[in-house]
Amino acid sequence: MNLQLPKGTRDFSPEEKILRDKIVNTLKEVFEIYGYAPLETPVLERFDVLASKYAGGAEILKEAFKLKDQGGRELGLRYDLTVPLARYVGMNPNIKMPFKRYQIGEVFRDGPVASARYRQFLQCDVDVVGSSSMATDAEIIALIYAAFRKLGFEIVVKVNSRKLLNDILSYCGIEKEKQEAVILSIDKLEKFGINVVKSELKQQKIDDKKIAKIIDITSANGSNQQKISQLKNILKNSEGLGEIGQLLSYLKNMGLEAEFAVSLARGLAYYTGTVIEAYLKNSSVKSSVCAGGRYDSMVGAFLEKGNYPAVGVSFGVDRIYDALLEKQKTTQKTTTKVYVIPIKTLNEGMKIAQQLRSAGIKTGIDLMERGPSKNLEYANSLGIPYVIFVGKKELQENKVKLRDMKSGKEEILDLQSVIKKLKP
Amino acid sequence: MNLQLPKGTRDFSPEEKILRDKIVNTLKEVFEIYGYAPLETPVLERFDVLASKYAGGAEILKEAFKLKDQGGRELGLRYDLTVPLARYVGMNPNIKMPFKRYQIGEVFRDGPVASARYRQFLQCDVDVVGSSSMATDAEIIALIYAAFRKLGFEIVVKVNSRKLLNDILSYCGIEKEKQEAVILSIDKLEKFGINVVKSELKQQKIDDKKIAKIIDITSANGSNQQKISQLKNILKNSEGLGEIGQLLSYLKNMGLEAEFAVSLARGLAYYTGTVIEAYLKNSSVKSSVCAGGRYDSMVGAFLEKGNYPAVGVSFGVDRIYDALLEKQKTTQKTTTKVYVIPIKTLNEGMKIAQQLRSAGIKTGIDLMERGPSKNLEYANSLGIPYVIFVGKKELQENKVKLRDMKSGKEEILDLQSVIKKLKP
Repeated sequence: MNLQLPKGTRDFSPEEKILRDKIVNTLKEVFEIYGYAPLETPVLERFDVLASKYAGGAEILKEAFKLKDQGGRELGLRYDLTVPLARYVGMNPNIKMPFKRYQIGEVFRDGPVASARYRQFLQCDVDVVGSSSMATDAEIIALIYAAFRKLGFEIVVKVNSRKLLNDILSYCGIEKEKQEAVILSIDKLEKFGINVVKSELKQQKIDDKKIAKIIDITSANGSNQQKISQLKNILKNSEGLGEIGQLLSYLKNMGLEAEFAVSLARGLAYYTGTVIEAYLKNSSVKSSVCAGGRYDSMVGAFLEKGNYPAVGVSFGVDRIYDALLEKQKTTQKTTTKVYVIPIKTLNEGMKIAQQLRSAGIKTGIDLMERGPSKNLEYANSLGIPYVIFVGKKELQENKVKLRDMKSGKEEILDLQSVIKKLKP
Repeated sequence: MNLQLPKGTRDFSPEEKILRDKIVNTLKEVFEIYGYAPLETPVLERFDVLASKYAGGAEILKEAFKLKDQGGRELGLRYDLTVPLARYVGMNPNIKMPFKRYQIGEVFRDGPVASARYRQFLQCDVDVVGSSSMATDAEIIALIYAAFRKLGFEIVVKVNSRKLLNDILSYCGIEKEKQEAVILSIDKLEKFGINVVKSELKQQKIDDKKIAKIIDITSANGSNQQKISQLKNILKNSEGLGEIGQLLSYLKNMGLEAEFAVSLARGLAYYTGTVIEAYLKNSSVKSSVCAGGRYDSMVGAFLEKGNYPAVGVSFGVDRIYDALLEKQKTTQKTTTKVYVIPIKTLNEGMKIAQQLRSAGIKTGIDLMERGPSKNLEYANSLGIPYVIFVGKKELQENKVKLRDMKSGKEEILDLQSVIKKLKP
């Protein structure tokens, strides 16, 4: 039989999984330090929920995996964790607001698999539902900084506001109905350059004068304060500009900063206010490693009732993994700290392994009674840092031989000394 | 829109998820202490892999969720973690043996949803591929004891051997071809009683005399040693009986025990040797909470090459969850330890929250500038144990008011004293 994985999916070997777990556990810890509680929703959702017109939108729905259960009900695999959040809020009207939750789970998209896009990937989301205060957006940015500091990275955070972009476009004379499409083009300014954006806007039948004006304003340079001043001069009472000012001021108060990037928009239609992207400094990973924003209408519209302002970001575990791998260079094939090799002393070896484990030491043992050299080769291939030989001679003195696999140094010790040395 | 979950699936609220995570993290920790490394495989598998004749079998395949990707490839949602393990071993011929891995992941079965069976549930598996030594089976039982001890439960472990059951049936004159079906009936002896088993065996056209003999032998009572002696008297050179003796002796050596249950067989066809089930003492959860066994032929047959003896068990997270809930009675709605309430002092409050978080304290804060009583109600509804009021008066002396939500006691403290008090 031809053993293969489905296209666009991956196995994670122990070596890869140990590092991925480390990233996920670090994120979980930071999320909880910031007061977020975990939520879990099923991988399967009813297809009508995923296809709701206020859900992820037509583009993403095309990529949804569809299936039926034995009762003929139409189901789908979730393509994000935001639609399940909206459904959960709708089905649990008694949740206390603001609802601060994080969710870490697999999502599925049946899209093209070129350029490292996967059909199953891990999403790591934090969201707050029920608060429209910019202090919440600022807290989420503080959380992003804390997470990457804990992971050992320096980052740049970029922020902008969809509301501000709408105000800019109104000022440039673009009709409301056209603004959404124009904003999605402007988002390409930094990634693809002025010419790509110009030609896209031309295709949208925006006249040259307006295009020049839009590009002039959104490619503003200088400090945050300079950009704000320039925009204040041309826009009267822009709510979006006010929010950005408020957000930057909250960040400053916490000793943090963000780059006000006037062309930043993010690709999704549902954002309504702040948009956020974080990039690594000093890494060959150039794409954003965390991104999101404010979506004040989606949850309420999806539920057809109530007012649920919301803001959240998603951490890109795959990209963080690549960057961490590049940085630390070594990986672990096992978390095991010591490997016990009985030399015709299996019963005694098993007892010793049990004692090490009771002391909380991650312990392996040869249960197959292989020879010492085969065992050393095995421990070495897994990168286990210590080995214990349980020989009859040493046992008579209640001792074992501990070998440091890196230095090759060997010591004859009693078990209590071994435990003292290896205990985490 | 009618918000609903797919039949047989569940959300886990923060309250439930915190407890589930605690169980899973405890299991992970014990698995690693026993030298197992994590593996992750995708939720999606190619349908031909799931349907391989050496995989889960016809019964389980009927319950597999089937779907197609946009390229028309037939895929399925995994129904267990054992078939993916076999596939992984086959696709990675350079893995060092024995391969000790654990995997924790969602599996899917489109079966009847009556009696608390779910269509998506969490599987927590440990397996060793590549060792046929009974010392490995003994180590897995030691791991089961360690896991439940860490979770706060006392357990009974029952063991038997499929090989032994085959030997017993041969002794009773049952032909090889009929033994599998008879064994699956014998497994019902303890759960459904003698009459059910008798009538099932009758349907299989086993004559009354043989049925009486089978039931007499497999319902043997007494101590493990008595059962072994009785069986030794009637079976000459039973390999299965030898293995059980060896297993019990390894366990005794480690200060552990298991109940030799001669009628225990487990429902799955692929077991070839040891079968294992663990039950909680003093709990209303009466079903097994961990079970598995040795399947020496499956991996090799599945891969159509090589000899891959294997043994493993699965922990039942749902049942452990029910039992833990019954035992500890209280749950947490959040892991947050302290909630900061600024009183017209949002900027100072945000700074204080940041300092608490930098000290590793799980901290929430009111970012919506609600009044103190609304905030107390919120903190109380989430069961957050401490609240900090940030008032202007106290701030002038560089202090805050800390309230113990349980006792209602309030203290005016400087932030360093608060951190010292709340630090985990």
